Amino acid sequence: MMAVYQTSDLTAASYSVALFGLAATTVLLLLGQAWVDRKWRLPVALCAIAALVGIGTVYEARDAWLAGNGVPVVYHYVGWSVSMPLQVLALFFLVGTAGKLSAGLFWRLVVVSVLMVFVRYLGEAQFMHPTLAFLIGLVFWLYLLGEFYFGRMDDVVRGSTGDYLRRGFFWLRLIVTVGWAIYPLGNFLTAFAGIADDGSLSVAYNFADILNRMAFGIAVLSTAVLASEENSRA
Amino acid sequence: MMAVYQTSDLTAASYSVALFGLAATTVLLLLGQAWVDRKWRLPVALCAIAALVGIGTVYEARDAWLAGNGVPVVYHYVGWSVSMPLQVLALFFLVGTAGKLSAGLFWRLVVVSVLMVFVRYLGEAQFMHPTLAFLIGLVFWLYLLGEFYFGRMDDVVRGSTGDYLRRGFFWLRLIVTVGWAIYPLGNFLTAFAGIADDGSLSVAYNFADILNRMAFGIAVLSTAVLASEENSRA
Amino acid sequence: MMAVYQTSDLTAASYSVALFGLAATTVLLLLGQAWVDRKWRLPVALCAIAALVGIGTVYEARDAWLAGNGVPVVYHYVGWSVSMPLQVLALFFLVGTAGKLSAGLFWRLVVVSVLMVFVRYLGEAQFMHPTLAFLIGLVFWLYLLGEFYFGRMDDVVRGSTGDYLRRGFFWLRLIVTVGWAIYPLGNFLTAFAGIADDGSLSVAYNFADILNRMAFGIAVLSTAVLASEENSRA
Amino acid sequence: MMAVYQTSDLTAASYSVALFGLAATTVLLLLGQAWVDRKWRLPVALCAIAALVGIGTVYEARDAWLAGNGVPVVYHYVGWSVSMPLQVLALFFLVGTAGKLSAGLFWRLVVVSVLMVFVRYLGEAQFMHPTLAFLIGLVFWLYLLGEFYFGRMDDVVRGSTGDYLRRGFFWLRLIVTVGWAIYPLGNFLTAFAGIADDGSLSVAYNFADILNRMAFGIAVLSTAVLASEENSRA
Amino acid sequence: MMAVYQTSDLTAASYSVALFGLAATTVLLLLGQAWVDRKWRLPVALCAIAALVGIGTVYEARDAWLAGNGVPVVYHYVGWSVSMPLQVLALFFLVGTAGKLSAGLFWRLVVVSVLMVFVRYLGEAQFMHPTLAFLIGLVFWLYLLGEFYFGRMDDVVRGSTGDYLRRGFFWLRLIVTVGWAIYPLGNFLTAFAGIADDGSLSVAYNFADILNRMAFGIAVLSTAVLASEENSRA
Repeated sequence: MMAVYQTSDLTAASYSVALFGLAATTVLLLLGQAWVDRKWRLPVALCAIAALVGIGTVYEARDAWLAGNGVPVVYHYVGWSVSMPLQVLALFFLVGTAGKLSAGLFWRLVVVSVLMVFVRYLGEAQFMHPTLAFLIGLVFWLYLLGEFYFGRMDDVVRGSTGDYLRRGFFWLRLIVTVGWAIYPLGNFLTAFAGIADDGSLSVAYNFADILNRMAFGIAVLSTAVLASEENSRA
Repeated sequence: MMAVYQTSDLTAASYSVALFGLAATTVLLLLGQAWVDRKWRLPVALCAIAALVGIGTVYEARDAWLAGNGVPVVYHYVGWSVSMPLQVLALFFLVGTAGKLSAGLFWRLVVVSVLMVFVRYLGEAQFMHPTLAFLIGLVFWLYLLGEFYFGRMDDVVRGSTGDYLRRGFFWLRLIVTVGWAIYPLGNFLTAFAGIADDGSLSVAYNFADILNRMAFGIAVLSTAVLASEENSRA
Repeated sequence: MMAVYQTSDLTAASYSVALFGLAATTVLLLLGQAWVDRKWRLPVALCAIAALVGIGTVYEARDAWLAGNGVPVVYHYVGWSVSMPLQVLALFFLVGTAGKLSAGLFWRLVVVSVLMVFVRYLGEAQFMHPTLAFLIGLVFWLYLLGEFYFGRMDDVVRGSTGDYLRRGFFWLRLIVTVGWAIYPLGNFLTAFAGIADDGSLSVAYNFADILNRMAFGIAVLSTAVLASEENSRA
Repeated sequence: MMAVYQTSDLTAASYSVALFGLAATTVLLLLGQAWVDRKWRLPVALCAIAALVGIGTVYEARDAWLAGNGVPVVYHYVGWSVSMPLQVLALFFLVGTAGKLSAGLFWRLVVVSVLMVFVRYLGEAQFMHPTLAFLIGLVFWLYLLGEFYFGRMDDVVRGSTGDYLRRGFFWLRLIVTVGWAIYPLGNFLTAFAGIADDGSLSVAYNFADILNRMAFGIAVLSTAVLASEENSRA
Repeated sequence: MMAVYQTSDLTAASYSVALFGLAATTVLLLLGQAWVDRKWRLPVALCAIAALVGIGTVYEARDAWLAGNGVPVVYHYVGWSVSMPLQVLALFFLVGTAGKLSAGLFWRLVVVSVLMVFVRYLGEAQFMHPTLAFLIGLVFWLYLLGEFYFGRMDDVVRGSTGDYLRRGFFWLRLIVTVGWAIYPLGNFLTAFAGIADDGSLSVAYNFADILNRMAFGIAVLSTAVLASEENSRA
């Protein structure tokens, strides 16, 4: 039986809302991938899986919180190590519906997004110098933003005829720029500036995770639904 | 192993009935969304997800109850914070099958329904002055009712040719008006008038939650099924 | 980890057989509802859900039994409060495939079947005079039988051209008449005549529940399958 | 948290392999029933359900083993009481795709296969004289074999045009003859000859259960797949 | 409630990443098998099931790790005993889409891949001489590689017109050659050279298992998707 948390325990409440919000997102996206045309299914499915993984990691982090000694930051990194590459690939395949993207870009995105999370973890766990890890993680993130803003993906979207894709890409890129900024920030605070997590960092991460996974997934789904309809009218 | 509850424990019994009743509703709506035309699937799916989230939150609240020190009110708020916006959006997309609704309305409904639950929680948790939170929560609820009774959604339903949609909207609006009245009432009793929950408030909330999520979901499903058939005959 | 039960513990064995038998029934009916024509799906789905709810309630009752102090009768009532209305409605919608049934009949069946279980529970829990509750529960059951034998549903089945529906209705009505007779009998023994449950009543209830939910569900499925085939030949 | 078992605990290892092997079989058969023509789906689904029930019963038996006092034989009987009738019916419906089988045969197979398991259990639990129960169980098994080798089912298969059905029936009958021989043998050893289970009998049962449910299910699936393709070519 | 692991516990972190990575792979492959043509579904489904089994075995191994006395190597072998034959068969059926493969080859692959894992386990558990078991296991692995590089499967792939199949087979064979080399190596280290597992071997196995099951499954899926599209264009 799980420990009971009180009404004033905002951290536990934020974990619970994240848990059920991600469950809702997962089911919606899993159902939704059947509503769109065949070529839009992969990006929607990847977002659904990113939310699904979030259910598991948030559940375990909440268990750790209720055990009473704070949530070791590794619990967050486990989730991000799977969900962030999935979301980057969702963006890749979403853009891939409008034009050919190279296999090289695919591999660069996979490798960089995995390393970005892994290096930050190494710094937090003191397996690597925290400052160095922070900086490398930052560079990897900026590299991803560079690909999204100035790389081949931006070209394909600009050249696409789909109105909805352009709008969707705009918002998704914004989430990856603004929403993901909390992760290097949190990384900076705990690993570099040495601030311990008394629960508030978890609240911030949960808030960011809900928005980043839910909003990202729903933006992909609605882009796919609208573009599918646009397609079938054409 | 879960603690065993006795036959005279009406609160535990009401949690169990809510648990299995919501499970039944979830499965019925998930199956049902495959029986209706493509454009009716989203509202049915949203109701299914609202019921699914209810399974989880009721299960955890029952665990808390069986641990013996009452159910902290946050357990209810966690569920509502996800299910209420989902139900408001189900209504939005149900009406959206009959006419165009603006994206602005979508965002107003999302924001107001999330804030309504969040503000009430802040009051209950004493993070905000209870009276003030109660009043703001009330205003948000009245705003939602205003949109449903006098806003664009009412116009679209009036102007629609679908007989079933008009009847369904009537009942759904009634649930949101009468069935949801218990939430500000309970909020008033615990947070404002300071009445503690000895289990009877949980019974009342469970009774309301079953009716509001089950009846709401089934009303949406039957509207969608009947309207789909009407459509295919036309 | 669950307590281990011994080979001679017939009550635990009957709970386990009920658990896995209901799981088998649920999966068969969920798969089966996809094998029949659209209009037969609802009754099959309702039977699947009744069996699914049975999995959960039998699982929890077995946990209570293994905790060592007998199974409070409320565990049975929780299951019946969801499954009995579902089965009554399955019969309603099965007959509804052959002719129009009024919405009034729908609501009478829902209300009476819910109240039948609820009143019996009130009697068992001593919230109401046991004799009175027993008698009222009996009247509600007889009312349901009256609707099935002499009401509009019987007329529709008699007037239907479907051979399989007539045969299916005959058997389903028999289950509701003979199989459901154990519930007022058990109610009489425990609540009215004051006989305690040393495990034998649970064995009897489990035996009845397996037969009533499994046989009922499979009878509905096979009626739906055979009638679908008859239809597609016609 | 489950107790940890060591590498040298062959019984626990055999339970774990049975658990995951049956999980793999279940998912394969559930996916597979969607790959075959409508009329072959029922036998495949019944085999999937028999494997699914095996997951649950093997999981609980392993829990009992890890609790340290051996596995009461009732844990095996619970599984067989559901899976054996399901497999007999899978054979019945598989043959039924090639020719009409009487409802009387259906009921005889159901009743005899259920009684075969039940009587053996009664003997093991000392509710009945072990020798007598062993002999009656044996007679019931021989009766089933008689139906498969000399009854109407054999006639239908011989007269069928489907090459794959004949070959599949040959193998399935062999599994029921040779593979099922371990159950009366184990029954003889524990109940009649009084040999206690120190874990080796569980290993033997697990080995037999994996083969009997996995091989049986996959034989039914491959017969159904090949026969479906034969059909669509014809 | 699960024990909480700390950020510096790299072994627990690698188990968690393996757990969620395999969950992501499973869902992706289960969804993906519905996106490809009928004849490509079986290999994709087998890879999905291999990943699914991995979820369960990794979960249990992590539980054992968190219990504090290291992970008995049997936990790894349980998973491999199911997943390795499944992956070998996935390769068999993938190649089988391009040309007829004999039933004899099927049975040789099944038997050899099962025995390869089983013999290694016997050596690790000291049921057999470790050196002998290591050598026999090695021979079985080399036999499988022989079939893939010089047997009938290689012929079929060379003779196939499908460009994607040739490229996919190249990569899959590489995974089975390079990625699977860690298993005899680990077997050598623990069983033969007597090196105990302080967690680093688990990290290595987890890293290998993620790559081998995830990369293998995704390579099969993308081969199937691309070949399906090639087919439908032809």
